[in-house]
Amino acid sequence: MNSHIAIGEGALNKEALMTLKSEGFDRMLLLEDADMALVAGSLLVPIYEEITPENRLRISAGEEHKNFASLMQILDWLIERKATRHSLLLVAGGGALLDMGGFAAAIYKRGVHTTYIPTTLMAMVDASVGGKTAIDYKGIKNLIGAFALPHTIIIDPLFLQTLDMYEIVAGYWELVKHALLSGKDVWKATISFDPTERGKIWSPIIRESVKIKEQYVCADLRDKGIRQYLNLGHTIGHAVEAFSHKVACKGSKPLRHGEAVLIGLICELYISHIRYSFPMNYIRSLIALAKEIQSPYLFSCKQYSAIIEYMYADKKNRGESIAVIGLKDLGEPVKLEVSEEEIKESFDFYREIFGQ
Amino acid sequence: MNSHIAIGEGALNKEALMTLKSEGFDRMLLLEDADMALVAGSLLVPIYEEITPENRLRISAGEEHKNFASLMQILDWLIERKATRHSLLLVAGGGALLDMGGFAAAIYKRGVHTTYIPTTLMAMVDASVGGKTAIDYKGIKNLIGAFALPHTIIIDPLFLQTLDMYEIVAGYWELVKHALLSGKDVWKATISFDPTERGKIWSPIIRESVKIKEQYVCADLRDKGIRQYLNLGHTIGHAVEAFSHKVACKGSKPLRHGEAVLIGLICELYISHIRYSFPMNYIRSLIALAKEIQSPYLFSCKQYSAIIEYMYADKKNRGESIAVIGLKDLGEPVKLEVSEEEIKESFDFYREIFGQ
Repeated sequence: MNSHIAIGEGALNKEALMTLKSEGFDRMLLLEDADMALVAGSLLVPIYEEITPENRLRISAGEEHKNFASLMQILDWLIERKATRHSLLLVAGGGALLDMGGFAAAIYKRGVHTTYIPTTLMAMVDASVGGKTAIDYKGIKNLIGAFALPHTIIIDPLFLQTLDMYEIVAGYWELVKHALLSGKDVWKATISFDPTERGKIWSPIIRESVKIKEQYVCADLRDKGIRQYLNLGHTIGHAVEAFSHKVACKGSKPLRHGEAVLIGLICELYISHIRYSFPMNYIRSLIALAKEIQSPYLFSCKQYSAIIEYMYADKKNRGESIAVIGLKDLGEPVKLEVSEEEIKESFDFYREIFGQ
Repeated sequence: MNSHIAIGEGALNKEALMTLKSEGFDRMLLLEDADMALVAGSLLVPIYEEITPENRLRISAGEEHKNFASLMQILDWLIERKATRHSLLLVAGGGALLDMGGFAAAIYKRGVHTTYIPTTLMAMVDASVGGKTAIDYKGIKNLIGAFALPHTIIIDPLFLQTLDMYEIVAGYWELVKHALLSGKDVWKATISFDPTERGKIWSPIIRESVKIKEQYVCADLRDKGIRQYLNLGHTIGHAVEAFSHKVACKGSKPLRHGEAVLIGLICELYISHIRYSFPMNYIRSLIALAKEIQSPYLFSCKQYSAIIEYMYADKKNRGESIAVIGLKDLGEPVKLEVSEEEIKESFDFYREIFGQ
């Protein structure tokens, strides 16, 4: 990877900005998430001291704003601010903003430099690393996008103190996914770390998680082979997530991405258990943790087919079969073609556990 | 370069299509320039035999259509045709369509494979090679784009027989530019080749030209250093082109890109002569050829400033100075910062020659 990554409580400081400034960009611009800026403004002071208000754009940036309209807003602003290929765009926000700001920067004059400052746990361990940028289109997640690596990533876990607990727990399931793709040591450290405890030092566990993602990405930037292993939990997870946004089930709210990944992980690990005897005790530890910190998402067996329908739209699914990532053991991912029957069985397993 | 390039009269044939088909793409789709298809339909038969009508999109594709509206039309069609990352999009047309279709393919699911089939001389020696894709936006050429290499390029000079002579001559100035960036042998072959003669075998001279462009691109795909030498003639050329589209001068029509490049070449070579004693005899040969085959574009000294204004918008111009590419000798490019005075002098030189 060519991006420079700084991770640490307080990593977003005056020195970090001075270092960027010393690199001689002709302009430094800031794109920031409006909601985040309201609650985390004090952490952004080092940036505000270097970037004057007219060079900042504050926009709404949830997944529902990750569309062409927001993209055009960013592009128009880059033109208005006379950004050049020698400018630097700092993007501070969650995953949706990093994806969208990164994509705007990737296609403006075929590439402006970026510094990502992820402010959610999900963005710290997932969106900021790996060079995937995108917007949603016609209801399909990340349909339009590009591969583009940021110049710099500054991960400052102090931002986590500004998040609500649901947000932190949701992001935590991506850390768990990385741990599953690593090995016993990281798995143990991750599964025994309590993300709901306030005031913890997060940087060691985040650093480990970023390192695992980088290892998979490095070997395969353009997502043609082993990078696909990072989709563990995501084929089923994405489908459940999309479904939850279309259908309100028994008063459940739409799922956050990470919450859906948890469901995907449980189901895909169950399939791995059936197919490759992936040890059940890891699945049990995951379930125990989930029961403790995550409220369950409920759906009925009548809805199985509707959920499965979403899997065929997944861009990694070639032709008509459904591909998921399984695990033979911790750190031993494998690509599987699965049947609808197997997926339905894994749904049964999930629903039995979470009491429907 | 990773693209496979086939060049030759008749290169677009049944075998070429069979070879593509044998690579196992899940779908083959065709994007074609409507005007071109009307006059060159018979050359496209090998494609039509493999790709059924519902998998073809025929669109209007001059520079005036290289915009967001056309981009969205292509993206919507890719969705409608269920293109995946394992599909192949064939793009047959001139430079504007290759730029735009290439860009759509680059950002759809972060990259669909493409085969470029350039049908103009300009597209054969310039747009198809080098991986630059883009659309225009807010009146700025290629403002939004990406770097993406096609899977294959099929250059069949038989398409040149369907073009009018103005189109061929305009494209020819890009070949001349490549010759200037090469050396004596290619220069001599190029300057003594009469592009206005019908029925000639073009493939040797096109092959040479493509090779020169590839050499510059290979060393520097992302346009950070020596690739910029390919902009010889283009700083001034782009400005004159943009100006000609805004202002009608004494009944002149807006310039084609290649025609503007000729003016840019003459002016920038003149500056090279003043600064580095670039030999005047090469400039004289170019002028002699130009007088023979190209009608002159006239502008007055009152318009100098308006033309120069466009140079500041050029995306390669860092900060406030004007950068042009000069030549110390054939094949010895150099990057120059020039003053407005020098540019105005070169305009005087151009106007004296072309008799205003």
